[in-house]
Amino acid sequence: MTASLETLDLDPAFALHRGGKLEIRSTIPVRDADDLSLAYTPGVARVCTAIADAPELVHDYTWVSNVVAVVSDGTAVLGLGDIGPAAAMPVMEGKALLFKEFGNVDSVPICLACTDVDELVETVIRLAPSFGGINLEDISAPRCFEVEARLREALDIPVFHDDQHGTAIVALAALKNAAQVVGRPLGDLRVVVAGAGASGVAVTRILLNAGVGDIAVSDSKGLIDEERGGVKGALARETNKAGLRGSTESALAGADVFIGLSGSTVSEQAIASMAAGSIVFALSNPTPEIDPAIARRHAQVVATGRSDFPNQINNVLAFPGVFRGALDVRAREITENMKVAAADALAAVIEAPTADHVIPSPFDPRVAPTVADAVAAQARLDGVARI
Amino acid sequence: MTASLETLDLDPAFALHRGGKLEIRSTIPVRDADDLSLAYTPGVARVCTAIADAPELVHDYTWVSNVVAVVSDGTAVLGLGDIGPAAAMPVMEGKALLFKEFGNVDSVPICLACTDVDELVETVIRLAPSFGGINLEDISAPRCFEVEARLREALDIPVFHDDQHGTAIVALAALKNAAQVVGRPLGDLRVVVAGAGASGVAVTRILLNAGVGDIAVSDSKGLIDEERGGVKGALARETNKAGLRGSTESALAGADVFIGLSGSTVSEQAIASMAAGSIVFALSNPTPEIDPAIARRHAQVVATGRSDFPNQINNVLAFPGVFRGALDVRAREITENMKVAAADALAAVIEAPTADHVIPSPFDPRVAPTVADAVAAQARLDGVARI
Repeated sequence: MTASLETLDLDPAFALHRGGKLEIRSTIPVRDADDLSLAYTPGVARVCTAIADAPELVHDYTWVSNVVAVVSDGTAVLGLGDIGPAAAMPVMEGKALLFKEFGNVDSVPICLACTDVDELVETVIRLAPSFGGINLEDISAPRCFEVEARLREALDIPVFHDDQHGTAIVALAALKNAAQVVGRPLGDLRVVVAGAGASGVAVTRILLNAGVGDIAVSDSKGLIDEERGGVKGALARETNKAGLRGSTESALAGADVFIGLSGSTVSEQAIASMAAGSIVFALSNPTPEIDPAIARRHAQVVATGRSDFPNQINNVLAFPGVFRGALDVRAREITENMKVAAADALAAVIEAPTADHVIPSPFDPRVAPTVADAVAAQARLDGVARI
Repeated sequence: MTASLETLDLDPAFALHRGGKLEIRSTIPVRDADDLSLAYTPGVARVCTAIADAPELVHDYTWVSNVVAVVSDGTAVLGLGDIGPAAAMPVMEGKALLFKEFGNVDSVPICLACTDVDELVETVIRLAPSFGGINLEDISAPRCFEVEARLREALDIPVFHDDQHGTAIVALAALKNAAQVVGRPLGDLRVVVAGAGASGVAVTRILLNAGVGDIAVSDSKGLIDEERGGVKGALARETNKAGLRGSTESALAGADVFIGLSGSTVSEQAIASMAAGSIVFALSNPTPEIDPAIARRHAQVVATGRSDFPNQINNVLAFPGVFRGALDVRAREITENMKVAAADALAAVIEAPTADHVIPSPFDPRVAPTVADAVAAQARLDGVARI
């Protein structure tokens, strides 16, 4: 047996989590038999019949159009790795809480007792009638890529792997403002991305879509090349125009931007070898790839994933607004354009970026509505909005 | 296209359902970065790690131990039949709302896009780590029996098909009080149950468990016998000691109790042929098997499923308290004894039953706590309580 609950609860994180962080509430009154006869039998039967006759009415007369499933298999939870579905639940509850608080999106944490790609895909497809969107979370790479791709293909509701795209949107927004601070267009920048997991791949792809000049991507074995299989090989074919070989650190010599998503470290010497006016996003959590105070000696703009340093790259800046916007127009999917539009809107929340302020605070109340409006507008432009 | 929403909303049931009936709420504050650092990263990681090390802590530090999945495949929704998962959602939301309002049980409506027994079972097993209990709802017979039995076998959380056991508990409670009104012990009563679907089978079984004298069960083909296959054949072997053959109506001659769960009708003549001091539960909804005013000419006690007549047999008298009690002690299952204990407790809420008051109102605030306490106590006696 572990420590007693009383002992655990001396840690305020445990005390806060006692009994969980979520509840279900009714949005309508149930005071008497008349209320009951409308909310439940016999009145509800008329609503059911109407939906059976015209299925699109499910969006109007149920909570489905405002509710997102936060789905995980518990295989890549924070930096903790494969801890299983039960131990993943506090994170998924936290995500649901953030969806509600920041985006007024209802969401339900669903931790699944299966890890096989086929089983994950078929399970989420079976669940889908109950939800207006699917937020995949903490599913390990490379399975996460196939799970998301197959669900996007199979379903006509938004499917969004936040570890990939949430991070990508916020990193692109921050990079746009950082480039403005250092006075460089995105197309001129040579970028090194350390990490070719879920977030590394997605950040690289969104930067390519946004027109970044050249990107070299590395993993624990060094810079990836076309001889790698799967997602990494495909990514190598689209990146590294400069034809660099070797280590992350060697690629940093003369580079303009470092984006760390690797859980590893990078030396001060390597950061010092970057071009003048460099940008360093050391995003590993809880320990950045390099101490931001040290990075700041050499780089003009430094960002991390932490709230105790300037420029926090935090997914909560993206996912509540992205889903809010997608649900508002009942989008069939979240397109690449919608992700870039989210990043543009997020970047534009800051009117005059400075080195220590390239990205808004998670508590800036303009963030979610601004992102949501941009995502909804782009969904209409892309023809994926239902309303 | 169907009628416009404005036209539909002229029906108050539709107006009430606009946007759905549920929302997710946070139970903790998220006002600033400090709150966020406890509810989400980095604080949440310590809670996850503790659960990974000691899985039983999931009950203490997540909402799982208070949340029930209301699972349907939409194949037998109210009296509407197989209307599919989307059209079933208003009923499942209604159920979730009743769980919260009457039992303070959080629940999530899950309408599944599959109807195969194997697929239903495996899907619910995969979902199970996210929930403290499974309430099956509106799954057609005979599949519902196998789905429930296999899930009870596979899972160590309560699995309860409400169409079966909710109805059974409330019917038994009402019958106990009705028997008291007519001055007869349960063991003396000869009962005819019309209907051998989910509720007919479960009502018959709980009456057998409670010691009712003899029960004859019929379906649309007449009284069931041992030559029937599956669940009906098995039930026939346990019932009909009198060896009756033929129709429901012929079996009613001289019977003490009629319980209608069939969706069919029964004639005044047949009711008139019952023994003196008879009891009639005409439970089909929205149209009882016989007009209760007509039945009352011959029977001493009459109950229906409707709120506009005395003695409403309503499942909401059972399921919120049953799950409240089971969750309170983290029961591994809901035993037959726990169901009978729930019925006993529900019956005992009425101190002095009369012909027009054999069962409490759904809005009687004593109901759910009384049922919950009885269910929790019986779970401990049966050795299925974790705490």
